[in-house]
Amino acid sequence: MTTYEQIGRLAQEQEKDLIATRRDFHKYAETGWFEMRTSSLIARRLTALGYEVLTGEQVCLKEARMGVPDAEALEAHYEKAKAWGADPEFLPATKGGMTGVIGILRRGEGPTVALRFDIDALGVNESTEPDHKPTAQGFASVNPGAMHACGHDSHAAVGLGVAKVLMDIADQLHGTVKLIFQPAEEGVRGAKSIVEKGHLDDVDFFIGSHVSSQTAAPGMALSAGSYGSLATCKYDVTYRGLAAHAGAYPQKGKNALLAASAAVLNLYAIPRHGDGASRINVGTLHAGSGRNVIADEAKMELEVRGATTAINNHMCQAAERILKSCADMYGCEMEMKLMGAADSLTSDRVLCDRINRVCREHMGLPVHPEMILSFGSEDISYMMNRVQARGGQATFMRILTPFAGPAHNRKFDIGEDVLTTGVKVFCAAVYDIMQ
Amino acid sequence: MTTYEQIGRLAQEQEKDLIATRRDFHKYAETGWFEMRTSSLIARRLTALGYEVLTGEQVCLKEARMGVPDAEALEAHYEKAKAWGADPEFLPATKGGMTGVIGILRRGEGPTVALRFDIDALGVNESTEPDHKPTAQGFASVNPGAMHACGHDSHAAVGLGVAKVLMDIADQLHGTVKLIFQPAEEGVRGAKSIVEKGHLDDVDFFIGSHVSSQTAAPGMALSAGSYGSLATCKYDVTYRGLAAHAGAYPQKGKNALLAASAAVLNLYAIPRHGDGASRINVGTLHAGSGRNVIADEAKMELEVRGATTAINNHMCQAAERILKSCADMYGCEMEMKLMGAADSLTSDRVLCDRINRVCREHMGLPVHPEMILSFGSEDISYMMNRVQARGGQATFMRILTPFAGPAHNRKFDIGEDVLTTGVKVFCAAVYDIMQ
Amino acid sequence: MTTYEQIGRLAQEQEKDLIATRRDFHKYAETGWFEMRTSSLIARRLTALGYEVLTGEQVCLKEARMGVPDAEALEAHYEKAKAWGADPEFLPATKGGMTGVIGILRRGEGPTVALRFDIDALGVNESTEPDHKPTAQGFASVNPGAMHACGHDSHAAVGLGVAKVLMDIADQLHGTVKLIFQPAEEGVRGAKSIVEKGHLDDVDFFIGSHVSSQTAAPGMALSAGSYGSLATCKYDVTYRGLAAHAGAYPQKGKNALLAASAAVLNLYAIPRHGDGASRINVGTLHAGSGRNVIADEAKMELEVRGATTAINNHMCQAAERILKSCADMYGCEMEMKLMGAADSLTSDRVLCDRINRVCREHMGLPVHPEMILSFGSEDISYMMNRVQARGGQATFMRILTPFAGPAHNRKFDIGEDVLTTGVKVFCAAVYDIMQ
Amino acid sequence: MTTYEQIGRLAQEQEKDLIATRRDFHKYAETGWFEMRTSSLIARRLTALGYEVLTGEQVCLKEARMGVPDAEALEAHYEKAKAWGADPEFLPATKGGMTGVIGILRRGEGPTVALRFDIDALGVNESTEPDHKPTAQGFASVNPGAMHACGHDSHAAVGLGVAKVLMDIADQLHGTVKLIFQPAEEGVRGAKSIVEKGHLDDVDFFIGSHVSSQTAAPGMALSAGSYGSLATCKYDVTYRGLAAHAGAYPQKGKNALLAASAAVLNLYAIPRHGDGASRINVGTLHAGSGRNVIADEAKMELEVRGATTAINNHMCQAAERILKSCADMYGCEMEMKLMGAADSLTSDRVLCDRINRVCREHMGLPVHPEMILSFGSEDISYMMNRVQARGGQATFMRILTPFAGPAHNRKFDIGEDVLTTGVKVFCAAVYDIMQ
Repeated sequence: MTTYEQIGRLAQEQEKDLIATRRDFHKYAETGWFEMRTSSLIARRLTALGYEVLTGEQVCLKEARMGVPDAEALEAHYEKAKAWGADPEFLPATKGGMTGVIGILRRGEGPTVALRFDIDALGVNESTEPDHKPTAQGFASVNPGAMHACGHDSHAAVGLGVAKVLMDIADQLHGTVKLIFQPAEEGVRGAKSIVEKGHLDDVDFFIGSHVSSQTAAPGMALSAGSYGSLATCKYDVTYRGLAAHAGAYPQKGKNALLAASAAVLNLYAIPRHGDGASRINVGTLHAGSGRNVIADEAKMELEVRGATTAINNHMCQAAERILKSCADMYGCEMEMKLMGAADSLTSDRVLCDRINRVCREHMGLPVHPEMILSFGSEDISYMMNRVQARGGQATFMRILTPFAGPAHNRKFDIGEDVLTTGVKVFCAAVYDIMQ
Repeated sequence: MTTYEQIGRLAQEQEKDLIATRRDFHKYAETGWFEMRTSSLIARRLTALGYEVLTGEQVCLKEARMGVPDAEALEAHYEKAKAWGADPEFLPATKGGMTGVIGILRRGEGPTVALRFDIDALGVNESTEPDHKPTAQGFASVNPGAMHACGHDSHAAVGLGVAKVLMDIADQLHGTVKLIFQPAEEGVRGAKSIVEKGHLDDVDFFIGSHVSSQTAAPGMALSAGSYGSLATCKYDVTYRGLAAHAGAYPQKGKNALLAASAAVLNLYAIPRHGDGASRINVGTLHAGSGRNVIADEAKMELEVRGATTAINNHMCQAAERILKSCADMYGCEMEMKLMGAADSLTSDRVLCDRINRVCREHMGLPVHPEMILSFGSEDISYMMNRVQARGGQATFMRILTPFAGPAHNRKFDIGEDVLTTGVKVFCAAVYDIMQ
Repeated sequence: MTTYEQIGRLAQEQEKDLIATRRDFHKYAETGWFEMRTSSLIARRLTALGYEVLTGEQVCLKEARMGVPDAEALEAHYEKAKAWGADPEFLPATKGGMTGVIGILRRGEGPTVALRFDIDALGVNESTEPDHKPTAQGFASVNPGAMHACGHDSHAAVGLGVAKVLMDIADQLHGTVKLIFQPAEEGVRGAKSIVEKGHLDDVDFFIGSHVSSQTAAPGMALSAGSYGSLATCKYDVTYRGLAAHAGAYPQKGKNALLAASAAVLNLYAIPRHGDGASRINVGTLHAGSGRNVIADEAKMELEVRGATTAINNHMCQAAERILKSCADMYGCEMEMKLMGAADSLTSDRVLCDRINRVCREHMGLPVHPEMILSFGSEDISYMMNRVQARGGQATFMRILTPFAGPAHNRKFDIGEDVLTTGVKVFCAAVYDIMQ
Repeated sequence: MTTYEQIGRLAQEQEKDLIATRRDFHKYAETGWFEMRTSSLIARRLTALGYEVLTGEQVCLKEARMGVPDAEALEAHYEKAKAWGADPEFLPATKGGMTGVIGILRRGEGPTVALRFDIDALGVNESTEPDHKPTAQGFASVNPGAMHACGHDSHAAVGLGVAKVLMDIADQLHGTVKLIFQPAEEGVRGAKSIVEKGHLDDVDFFIGSHVSSQTAAPGMALSAGSYGSLATCKYDVTYRGLAAHAGAYPQKGKNALLAASAAVLNLYAIPRHGDGASRINVGTLHAGSGRNVIADEAKMELEVRGATTAINNHMCQAAERILKSCADMYGCEMEMKLMGAADSLTSDRVLCDRINRVCREHMGLPVHPEMILSFGSEDISYMMNRVQARGGQATFMRILTPFAGPAHNRKFDIGEDVLTTGVKVFCAAVYDIMQ
């Protein structure tokens, strides 16, 4: 039996456990920086398997985290996590939102390979309808307003499955493996703080993945790479003005609502970019306290994107200029807070083709030969770009499975076959590199 | 002893009761269309005094009420009112927000005189600081989010004081007195529905008042008339569009937030009016569900005003045109709901001078001789204009007293001397007209 | 015969000459800072009558003039003025737009009285239709694009008539008379530079007038004062950006047209002022060079106004802030040039009543007793405010006559009876003060 | 000698004539729909060569022409054309802007091949500096405001050169050749009217070309195809409102300048399109008559573009909705006139490769093997799309040469070697297809 065959068997053997693990994470869904229970259990499992385990402030650079919830909310969730069976040894390290775990396996000389699994849920209320499988089978989220509607529960479970298999075949590996369980991918808030902590600085090969709908490539299990993900910046913006009675003293007000409205119109009017796609969206706007009062506060959540990091930067600069000018225009103060960010990314063709070939030839997996153009934004880009900048190779794969409901929807669900597939793909790739 | 002297003494005698009544209303503050407890107690007192009493659907024309809260909230408050000691006989008539009371005293041939007392509180959280007298003395509002921060508690108490005195001197009066306890003056929502019910159609003399800060006329007790109150319309506006992912399909969205922002800018840009003051304010704007989603809903609270009803109408038309066009512009639907309205008003100089003279000569009250330009808007205008349109005389007086804190503020409070003053002024005026 | 009767007769005797003078000025209409021929002839006439005459740089403070045309245009008109019979002795002083004349009559001890006559035409093409009297009778403007469509031709003629009569009765006058023939009133560009030169600093009584339509006060010859004229500032604004091909490199442009459009919308959205009327108008906007090029230049002519100088200043500041912010917003440069300005004005009631009485009692003129609310703006305000600030009295009168066509219209014409009326009013007033 | 060699020799032999012809067209540059002299001379030459010649209303469908100048200007130019040596026989057909010529050569059975040569100049003033070759050598434009700054003079000359060669080798051709000399390509105004006339309905192969700078592919003579040209629509928009005095009656105006400004801002804010590039530009805006008058007219020149015809249509619809809504918003009328339009285009790879091979193998021309992404828009798209829709093949080639000055610049000039190259490429391609 070849090692590839061994990997296949080991993956298959733990199918039940993978499903149970995924369902457990699904049930106790935790959104970005709240993944306290999730992190503690991952740390427990990696420790039990024999990995060197980094937790708490060892994982993310504290001050480089973006979009961290307020202290009170974090504190409250900590208690919830405890009640939901968090591991008591590893929970304390997650206090204040220091979530995320890294497991390291050192096998002497050889390349350093990093794998990334993101673990956070989305701010969505899960469907309670009986035709929604997690509900029907009793593993729907018990955490209101949090749901694994993007499949990161499966990513985390695959990560643990990979950890087990790699430890089983450890004596056939040469070099170092880092299993990065990343918090707060939603809102593109977490990856940068792991990169800033230096964990990618010695990495030669980097592999990440996302579950993806099979619709585009029926019957296929894998697309070995993707490209074109949009660079993005997410901002929370607050305008502060001055209230005044709108009937008696309209001239005394500094109208934050009007400043925000002017900003909205001019933000959308940022010119298109000749070098590629750009995006702007002001998703929410909340302003004012009463009908007959000049509004003294306005809050907006907005984002820009660009087909390249350069285009995205251009959009950021234009947005900042407009936001600032509209404050000046109405005598208001403006505060602009970066809540998340990602660069654009491109997988390395060589690494894609290599994984592609291994999976097809050794693992018997049907592979879609083309790189997939990815919509949306992913902060895995920071990790890939750091590795590529230092001469390493990186790819962001799509592991394909039938979806129930579209991603980010309350009725989203994955085909659980993706769990064993995921374990096989990652382990085969690692073995191919480190054998 | 003249009847005027008798009025003075009767007013003075009930000072303690006036204060107790006012403080009771203050403690159980009820905002517009929620004045269920307040109305039931007024009805009880008027009945006890021997007035013919109209309640429930006899007072306001049901479908002409503006800005009525939703049924659920009204139902919930009904239970509160019951718990707070509403009169069980008169409470049921107020169900569904049919608040307000009219007391009628018929004394044969003679003019019909209507007096108006508004009874609703404001949507303000009362101060809990110890230097705030209602808090210190234990009569601060027990109804969170509702506070008599505009003095209508004193208006209601004065109305009941007037009712008592007029009944005491009833045999010296000729004609008919109507005591109108109006709901929902804040937001200018209630008066019109009383007018539409026809209660002002047979009125020869109409008198209303508002407590006002003595700062402008130190030592004065009364300004017998005011003018220039701005006509106004209050609207709730909703834009409905279509959500879409802002990164992948921005062109598929119908951006309600953008439509609303465009509307805001163009609403403020409505041209000034050559005939007099105009006003526009979008006080609140709430739009969107998430940063990366094209906003599919936006809600605004706005108001326009005009120095005359004609200017106000001009503003309404311009606002509606702009709101509609901005919906069209972004393929959205727009709904515009009238939540309140008032006309401009001018007191009759002859009636002002008459009350002025009576108060100064017979009641010993220091009177400010000029009509006061009133800021803001008052729906008493509908009542005055209806009376004036039919040849009657009307005035909207200011009864002066030192204020603690500005009106509509959480630390607002009145000097309670205004209670006996108010009773004297109204009763002397009525007696002068009906003797 | 009283001196008043003498004034009446002297005014009447020169009626033909007044008409001829007015028609000559009408025919050779000269707009602001171009009144070279007009000024030279006025200087000639005042000199001939025996006045001390100030011309050229003695009249306006050169650098305080606003909205001065470019040198080339001024030079070209100088040649025209010469060709049209300008006085060769006094023409040279007007070079470069140093127009305007002051005639001084010193009669020893006594008050200093200043009279103001504005002399410029408007930028209007005069009607060539036969029903337009100046055309029918051969005195329509021979200067294309310039027309006395606001009656300043009659003001100038009246000024010369007054000069003649006052010299005739000089031995009955005590004190000093200043006859100020002001250039560039249209666009409110000239008065301030005369004030800044100091000519109003010793003035005790100041009288100005404007012809006005008799429609509002049929049969009346005079309204002795007016009030409420709006303070104003006029600006020329230029945005400069960067051109780019709109198809290939839209992101490289700095869009001056877009900056200007944003400015327009936000300028109109400057909040109303609680203290009184405000105005804003962007009258013209010219931007861009071609359909497929990002516009690199935009030019606007705009004005703000206010019921008081304070309100106007508030508008100016808001406008400047908005104009600057919109430049910043789109990375453009902004230049803002003050082209004209006026303060608000109020005539002194005492002086109005005095002239009123003199005209009615001594000159047999029907006088409208009320001050007239004046629309629009007048830079005579600078002169009045300077005199009033130093304790003097000032009035801006309306001399009434039937109009043909509305002011500023190409078919505008005045009733020429206003010429003798004007001479009578001014001379009677001066005599009353200085006798 | 092969026919290909013959074509090469025939092209080379007429080099001098090609240069003379191009310089003549350059000197008498005529912009779109004014190409009266140019058309008459082309018709004369084609007739002399023996072609069946279509002129006047036979070429363009009269009412499908876009952006036609006004009748007076066309009439005036007709006289100029006559004076500049237009052919007296063919000039009359061009009256009213019915320019363009089609020459047809029928050679029995076989495919129908259409070649397109555009002939109009640009609205640019040609440089008069001595380092500008056309000026130095005496063939700079004598028509102020018109210049061949985009190389269509060379296209027309090449077309005539092709006509000559094809007639010389006519007996080796089988099928039909149509030589289409198209007017008004600049502003994308002419092609559609030729398509609508039906001239492309029987075409099997369609070839067009544009001179292009060799910078991108040094040493290359030809790129056999291009793709990605943006679909576009060009509009002239007029807002008509109502003037009013901005000080006295601002509310009476209907502000066309404000409507236009609002439109500008909202046009730029049309959302990006997820399917590909979109563009919007308001290139010029001219509004208003005077500073103190509410502007009653505003005129804009604008354009939208899209990477596909569908995206462009989306932009057109959004633009129209916004333009209309902004008129409604300010009570104005809006007129929107289509001044030009083009679809997106993609050359057929098979035809590109075919021409590519022929040129390289038989004509000895260095060929750039890739299709070039073309910036900007070209109305040749209408012709290509019509041919392709009916199953034919089409390509839009780039013939490469060094440029002096960028296209559309007053110092633009081409390398004249492009003339013989052009003749060779077209003739070799036609022969390859029709042999």
